[in-house]
Amino acid sequence: MIISLDMMGGDFAPEEAVKGVRLYLESTSSPADLLLIGHQDAVQPLLDQQGIPKARYELVHAPEVIGMHEPPTRALKEKPHSSIAVGFHLLREHRSDAFISAGNTGAMMVGTLYTIKTIEGILRPTISTLVPRENGKPGVLLDVGLNADCKPENLVQFALLGTLYARHILQIPEPRVGLLNIGEEEGKGNLLAQAAYPLLKQHPSIRFIGNVEGRDLFSEKADVIVCEGFTGNVILKLGESFYEIARRRGIQDAYIDQMNFENYGGTPVLGVAEPVIIGHGISSALAFKNMIVLAEQMIQSHFTDTIRQVFEQINQQS
Amino acid sequence: MIISLDMMGGDFAPEEAVKGVRLYLESTSSPADLLLIGHQDAVQPLLDQQGIPKARYELVHAPEVIGMHEPPTRALKEKPHSSIAVGFHLLREHRSDAFISAGNTGAMMVGTLYTIKTIEGILRPTISTLVPRENGKPGVLLDVGLNADCKPENLVQFALLGTLYARHILQIPEPRVGLLNIGEEEGKGNLLAQAAYPLLKQHPSIRFIGNVEGRDLFSEKADVIVCEGFTGNVILKLGESFYEIARRRGIQDAYIDQMNFENYGGTPVLGVAEPVIIGHGISSALAFKNMIVLAEQMIQSHFTDTIRQVFEQINQQS
Repeated sequence: MIISLDMMGGDFAPEEAVKGVRLYLESTSSPADLLLIGHQDAVQPLLDQQGIPKARYELVHAPEVIGMHEPPTRALKEKPHSSIAVGFHLLREHRSDAFISAGNTGAMMVGTLYTIKTIEGILRPTISTLVPRENGKPGVLLDVGLNADCKPENLVQFALLGTLYARHILQIPEPRVGLLNIGEEEGKGNLLAQAAYPLLKQHPSIRFIGNVEGRDLFSEKADVIVCEGFTGNVILKLGESFYEIARRRGIQDAYIDQMNFENYGGTPVLGVAEPVIIGHGISSALAFKNMIVLAEQMIQSHFTDTIRQVFEQINQQS
Repeated sequence: MIISLDMMGGDFAPEEAVKGVRLYLESTSSPADLLLIGHQDAVQPLLDQQGIPKARYELVHAPEVIGMHEPPTRALKEKPHSSIAVGFHLLREHRSDAFISAGNTGAMMVGTLYTIKTIEGILRPTISTLVPRENGKPGVLLDVGLNADCKPENLVQFALLGTLYARHILQIPEPRVGLLNIGEEEGKGNLLAQAAYPLLKQHPSIRFIGNVEGRDLFSEKADVIVCEGFTGNVILKLGESFYEIARRRGIQDAYIDQMNFENYGGTPVLGVAEPVIIGHGISSALAFKNMIVLAEQMIQSHFTDTIRQVFEQINQQS
């Protein structure tokens, strides 16, 4: 199992990425093979400094870096030797089994959509966030920003992808799916939610529990909550700001601390043919470690194959 | 100045409504005339018990009550002697200058839209919420649920209504307006936000500061934040749940306490010809008092007239 990691991505790169690698290696006795992509002059000294044995990684030199605010498409084109471009190249050539970066989110998305194929039958890949719940077990919210405008069929596919993610990665056997809405009864909501409701209700592979409201997000009502990427992204960033406000005000609370989204690592791009994980710009060492573990889980559980099979079956049935 | 108040509306009615009346009367030396609408057998003993002098109110007997979960349109039709129906009747007949209820929200909306005229030129009335900000001064978020699907022109009108509300009720001289979006730059977002941006930017009566994101909601970036009612309602309910989680976890914090939306009282329906204020079901005595004060402010500042004049001017210009 080979996992490639962009060492230059994120606000605290490469330091935190290197520390994340160390955390990961310390946490397991049978680590994956790691391809660490970055400028060797910047990364090698830090790896040595952290005492990470050379046998546990291969450093892939990438002399260019895509900045956090560069226009994604142009940057990818003009910097073929950037860590992100090299990472996608390795993944496409099957020289790695997963690619992780906390770098320029736009470049990661463009790279994913143009380098890695979308699984057949999937209309729109999606990104999700884990939602800390008061019962201690995270739920999944999706889409959180990749698809600002959606059709009802997109929400149905997000529900399926979220179900598979909850089942195979979060180990929730029969995930309950809720539709984010502004009322509890069927028929409530905007045109999108009204149209999505019956499709979700009648779908044989979705355990649909109906509408959930903003107040239910952190409750145990649903394990998977689907919405279009506009509302999802607003929620994601609002949630982050809650955590930051609490921290600024010196509030110490174990549950509020779980809202520190950087702990979760990144979000996989669901619906593409290879595991790609996009980290938050502010990713810490722990976030990097968690992203490597998530990549490992995705590879071990043959997660993209599972998605492919499920969508194949659904397409055959319909 | 005559303000009518539904004493039977809300989860803790009529007790909290009565206590709210007492709080209001204690807080001012020149109170408005109050018409208290409710079942006299339920309300009169409580008024007496709270020691509220009979000279300070008129009790309007309304023998029927619309339950919190009754279908609104049917309930209003079948219960013409309910406190909500009577309240709208008094307002329409100009026997009161404002109507307040924390009862069935749907019935309040239906009553408002069908009994009270929409101000000419306004496409869709809207409801808002006050947003506690870290600088201590509340901002306004709208729409928060009345208009789940919007056109760009609706958002422009919400921006105008929010501006007038911030200026005349919140006393912010030149309110800055932000468009809720999922990116900072122009061109970001869903189709609605993309289309609304240039309209907001070029509008002479709107001090538009550009896009704001979910993380900016509680910041000082904008005084008025506009969005469609789907996202707005999700935010509103999510915000409430944050406060409830904090309370459940015993977190004591002055700022978090401001997120207790019930303190704010209710939301006026902006864009209709008479002041109507809809309270939260869980309205406390303080919320009732605050709603009476808000009604007073709206009447004193001739708020609906101001809206009428501004929209008249805009219509003449265009």
